[in-house]
Amino acid sequence: MAKELTSRAENYSQWYNELVIKADLAEQSAVRGCMVIKPYGYAIWERMQRELDDKFKETGHVNAYFPLFIPKSFLSREAEHVEGFAKECAVVTHYRLKTNAEGNGVVVDPEAKLEEELIVRPTSETIIWSTYKNWIHSWRDLPILCNQWANVVRWEMRTRLFLRTAEFLWQEGHTAHATREEAEEEAKRMLNVYADFAENFMAVPVVKGVKSANERFAGALDTYCIEAMMQDGKALQAGTSHFLGQNFAKAFDVHFTDKDGKEQSVWATSWGVSTRLMGALIMTHSDDNGLVLPPKLAPDQVVIVPIYKTEEQRNTIREKVEKLMAGLKAKGVRVKFDDNDTKKPGWKFAEYELKGVPVRVAIGARDLENGTAEIARRDTMEKETVSMDGIEEKIVALLDDVQKNIFQKALKYREANTREVNSYDEFKEEIEKGGFLLCHWDGTTETEERVKAETKATIRCIPLDGDKTPGTCIFTGKPSKQRVIFARAY
Amino acid sequence: MAKELTSRAENYSQWYNELVIKADLAEQSAVRGCMVIKPYGYAIWERMQRELDDKFKETGHVNAYFPLFIPKSFLSREAEHVEGFAKECAVVTHYRLKTNAEGNGVVVDPEAKLEEELIVRPTSETIIWSTYKNWIHSWRDLPILCNQWANVVRWEMRTRLFLRTAEFLWQEGHTAHATREEAEEEAKRMLNVYADFAENFMAVPVVKGVKSANERFAGALDTYCIEAMMQDGKALQAGTSHFLGQNFAKAFDVHFTDKDGKEQSVWATSWGVSTRLMGALIMTHSDDNGLVLPPKLAPDQVVIVPIYKTEEQRNTIREKVEKLMAGLKAKGVRVKFDDNDTKKPGWKFAEYELKGVPVRVAIGARDLENGTAEIARRDTMEKETVSMDGIEEKIVALLDDVQKNIFQKALKYREANTREVNSYDEFKEEIEKGGFLLCHWDGTTETEERVKAETKATIRCIPLDGDKTPGTCIFTGKPSKQRVIFARAY
Repeated sequence: MAKELTSRAENYSQWYNELVIKADLAEQSAVRGCMVIKPYGYAIWERMQRELDDKFKETGHVNAYFPLFIPKSFLSREAEHVEGFAKECAVVTHYRLKTNAEGNGVVVDPEAKLEEELIVRPTSETIIWSTYKNWIHSWRDLPILCNQWANVVRWEMRTRLFLRTAEFLWQEGHTAHATREEAEEEAKRMLNVYADFAENFMAVPVVKGVKSANERFAGALDTYCIEAMMQDGKALQAGTSHFLGQNFAKAFDVHFTDKDGKEQSVWATSWGVSTRLMGALIMTHSDDNGLVLPPKLAPDQVVIVPIYKTEEQRNTIREKVEKLMAGLKAKGVRVKFDDNDTKKPGWKFAEYELKGVPVRVAIGARDLENGTAEIARRDTMEKETVSMDGIEEKIVALLDDVQKNIFQKALKYREANTREVNSYDEFKEEIEKGGFLLCHWDGTTETEERVKAETKATIRCIPLDGDKTPGTCIFTGKPSKQRVIFARAY
Repeated sequence: MAKELTSRAENYSQWYNELVIKADLAEQSAVRGCMVIKPYGYAIWERMQRELDDKFKETGHVNAYFPLFIPKSFLSREAEHVEGFAKECAVVTHYRLKTNAEGNGVVVDPEAKLEEELIVRPTSETIIWSTYKNWIHSWRDLPILCNQWANVVRWEMRTRLFLRTAEFLWQEGHTAHATREEAEEEAKRMLNVYADFAENFMAVPVVKGVKSANERFAGALDTYCIEAMMQDGKALQAGTSHFLGQNFAKAFDVHFTDKDGKEQSVWATSWGVSTRLMGALIMTHSDDNGLVLPPKLAPDQVVIVPIYKTEEQRNTIREKVEKLMAGLKAKGVRVKFDDNDTKKPGWKFAEYELKGVPVRVAIGARDLENGTAEIARRDTMEKETVSMDGIEEKIVALLDDVQKNIFQKALKYREANTREVNSYDEFKEEIEKGGFLLCHWDGTTETEERVKAETKATIRCIPLDGDKTPGTCIFTGKPSKQRVIFARAY
């Protein structure tokens, strides 16, 4: 191996931390809690962005951009928002530096103090709804279906690359509607867009559900979410879509005149996914050899490594590879030829395994004689020697198979680690093993918080699909409408 | 007209401000100096981004992401950088809010004071070079060719939408090289990428040049720039590319071992364009009826407006339009059908003129009888009735012609307003008329500053191409190597 990686079994958390660094995805910066997303990590994020952005546009949304800063007073406008939202924010108090007395550095100019402090956006509902007030007057101005790609800051005490960082990148959709029904439909539509993206592009199976009151976004009437299971059995919330009711419209005084000439408050949704998806991607598929990337998101889907002893062999291989690359590119495959002669083939094999390139093609002297190549798939590490005739179709089919296979593998893992639990004693035992526990719950925040305090497990969601049989709460014995998912979570 | 616009002749500055608002491009936000980029404006910016990003990737660059915040002490590391760079920055001093004593709002928690203040990045050389230190050890690690798309903040006292805002969006490329030659070549390469983009996509003619010492980026050895002329004769700097020498490498201690095993400091460039390009785009082409957009950047290249009296006519038109739209889309044309029946055709015509849609197609009852349509081009406002047979090819050719025509028009305007000036008396007279003045200059900052103080004109650049005949400075009579461009600027 080019770079030794702690195994998952040994220390899952350390495996993750090392993998992010060694696969060149991201690193800590000089600023506490803020990460640097390195080119390889950013290339994957860019592919996520492009795909999501296309999906948003297909569903009628447009992009816009709202300010990075939010006047402090805005945060207090929506009572539940400020109450419920974490107050760990970056606060801008001054707008100028000046040279220090010694002339060798800078200090904050005390005379340049802002009248009202500005908060670096932790989320943009308040600044956006203060803007929408000017955009919305009549039912003709609705709906507004805006999204923005932006950076946000939440001052976290304990950070982990991609999973929890002070600054992170995300998209936040903010929509305005004339009716409750339309807004609820929108919140659910975007949940489905996220689920579709997670499953069909990231190959990450997700449970669609709704959050309990306790886990709801501050200011929302309903928070829909997609929950994924990582390979250590912990849950990761991969995306949320909020039905905000009229809370923000009322807080920011956003009215419209309906078709009957009546004044109404506007209905709202917001929805977002972030660079946290990178964490979900890594922890769902990767193994002790490194990253495993779904072909649809891999910056390089195929890498070709030549194995030669003589310059003549090298040239002959190169000729064959050029033809193969042209053929693959014509089929829309992203392919890289690593002809670098300062590294040995073995080093390259380990490197591309670490980087999660879905398919590796190796061509050596014997292959030249036989008209063959060796194809290796990253997910199962299986190798096969195939004829160069028809190799392009084979590779395309293989990429498709890898995409499907890693999804199925993750799905099976989740299914194997999702179980019904019918008593609290059983719960306490089972939660130690990880996974999703399907339990009856009485619907109260009190019970939820007691369980959380005692077991560190939270309600990940009340699933939208599946079994809706009522029962009795395993904690209090009170009636329960349906089983919910309890798990420990990232 | 749907929305009356002040004419350029009446008040150019007011015309610009009104146009940005009325064409729905951007607006002021609740935060002083920060703008909201509205969906229509953002759609144009997105097209700019996509095109530039493709060009960066074609020239071997990759994207990455670096922190929003910069530790205050970093700014002092490169002496000229901190000396020369504006100190108007947003300063983060605290990381937490708390509920106020009355319980109805939030205040800054005095206990959550940062040990070292963080600056919201005004540009990222310092944080990036502190990162590159860990990435660069050997000549094998070079070159590094990174770009980032990001928001930056420079606390401006007087702001104007797109042209000068406290927060703006931009891209900043930061490259690291083993040799001086390679870095200089890179800085020039990116200048050419910018010039190509400005001329061939934005249809904005630019002069490529190098800045005088006085106008150089703080910390650069050379600042290359592209300068455009607006319709009021003022210059607008549309992009810059800096050869940074080894200044940042030395300040952040970034060394590498060269092929001979010797320790060397790394050579650097940085280059950027921002949402200011939106201002250049608007002010180069637009007229008293509104925006004029180059087809390559227009979110909608063609709008089709139906003119009908009966529902039957409407349906017949719709059938024809669907076929036309399919044909245009197949040719890669972005086309919109405005079938909204709450607005009259006349209103729509004015609206799409205001929005700068390059080509408008109108189909009415008489057109149905004759198998024709009316095509209007936005740039010249010319209309023509054409047969529906072959209309698609005609539209494609027309879009191409509009793109070329507005470039030529802008080029002619610039040429007509660029003149050689040979005495300071003449200079003082000519500068009042606007435009670019080609003058001999003695190469000193002293002269440059005197001229600026007296006339508000600055040296926009020392042109890279064109006349290199030496002469004598029109201000001091001292020797001059070549004529430089003086102008008043945005």
